[in-house]
Amino acid sequence: MSNGTLILMRHGESEWNASNQFTGWVDVALTDKGKAEAVRAGQLLVEHDVLPDILYTSLLRRAISTAQIALDTADRHWIPVTRDWRLNERHYGALQGLNKADTLEKYGQEQFMLWRRSYDTPPPAIEADSRYSQTGDPRYADLAEVPLTECLQDVVVRLVPYFEEVIAADLRAGKTVLVAAHGNSLRALVKYLDGISDADIAGLNIPTGNPLRYDLDGDLKPLNPGGTYLDPEAAAAGAAAVAAQGQK
Amino acid sequence: MSNGTLILMRHGESEWNASNQFTGWVDVALTDKGKAEAVRAGQLLVEHDVLPDILYTSLLRRAISTAQIALDTADRHWIPVTRDWRLNERHYGALQGLNKADTLEKYGQEQFMLWRRSYDTPPPAIEADSRYSQTGDPRYADLAEVPLTECLQDVVVRLVPYFEEVIAADLRAGKTVLVAAHGNSLRALVKYLDGISDADIAGLNIPTGNPLRYDLDGDLKPLNPGGTYLDPEAAAAGAAAVAAQGQK
Repeated sequence: MSNGTLILMRHGESEWNASNQFTGWVDVALTDKGKAEAVRAGQLLVEHDVLPDILYTSLLRRAISTAQIALDTADRHWIPVTRDWRLNERHYGALQGLNKADTLEKYGQEQFMLWRRSYDTPPPAIEADSRYSQTGDPRYADLAEVPLTECLQDVVVRLVPYFEEVIAADLRAGKTVLVAAHGNSLRALVKYLDGISDADIAGLNIPTGNPLRYDLDGDLKPLNPGGTYLDPEAAAAGAAAVAAQGQK
Repeated sequence: MSNGTLILMRHGESEWNASNQFTGWVDVALTDKGKAEAVRAGQLLVEHDVLPDILYTSLLRRAISTAQIALDTADRHWIPVTRDWRLNERHYGALQGLNKADTLEKYGQEQFMLWRRSYDTPPPAIEADSRYSQTGDPRYADLAEVPLTECLQDVVVRLVPYFEEVIAADLRAGKTVLVAAHGNSLRALVKYLDGISDADIAGLNIPTGNPLRYDLDGDLKPLNPGGTYLDPEAAAAGAAAVAAQGQK
């Protein structure tokens, strides 16, 4: 078969992106701006003629809605869809719900960036009875254990096997696969695809609502390392905005 | 395992419901009223505590959107979803796109009702190059032949095996299954579930956006024959409105 095309899409602006709160597994909705970003993403898919054959999403509303809106815009609302918790955002532990600027002010730049960008240091675990904990959420009923916090390495450990065992089969069949997910789950996937080191991944930021295209060879190695944003100018501005988060 | 629960949901009002046109496989969107019906359907699922474990939809936008909105309202947007053409509306042949009132006036009551409600007489076939034909639509690329018209019997023939081979497994596993589909594909399914005769099915009308619940025994026979509308009053009014279609 021909080689597959992988399109990574981070959800559009969510309510907690807008209010500058750590989100993680908390299931917040898109803002109107986020919905508009999703429409734009769908238009980009059409303009660049990369029409997905199949969709993978996390179990979180902001990724699910972004994909629905983008695919509806691209007249591909009817493609098969698979949702899986392994595409979820990184669980942000006890930080979930906290304002990023308040957290930066309270704990200082070093601790703040360690929690946000360290590869293997998770934030403190969330209390299971916190209003922002996912313990008891029916969508995770099949998990042996619902995470209480995660570092990026934890995301790599849950996500890469899923990519290799499930998503890869569609790519090997030559399909165009859309993965609608989150800033950190997509960072984990890009780290794997591009072979980025544990240290260097800290500097990689993924903008919202801008499809990132990878053309893959037969071994699923990128023919275009780093991928190609369908809107490169918006991507540069968007990544800078993500990097600057925490500032009031 | 325990017995399954089947929830049938006809899409909310579409643009062509509102303009009184035959729709069939033409992929029109919901109106604002249709979206509001979908929200109400989701609220009914919550109020009656019938939360779907899995979703089946057709490949048509009006059913897909109705399910998305209803499930988002019920906080079940994350459940697995399968889309299949066999849940599509009946293909309305050469009538697709025509105004129902104009058609009634032009062909008379007898012919009009024969096309709408005869069990085994399809409308004239649509021309493959009509703007309302689905020949060449990529979502049907895997079909040996894209229909050019269908009677209700044709829908029964494509839909019942799919129900028995695919959907039934989830019901036998005790799941609550939501089927988001169309007036005539749901009439075909209700005919099968309730054992309605070819003649009597002509008198059955299914209202938009009102979940119809079937509790099934181990043989997938209804414990509540005819099913139970979650909003019985709206269902009676809605079915009467469907029956009266064609009148200007």
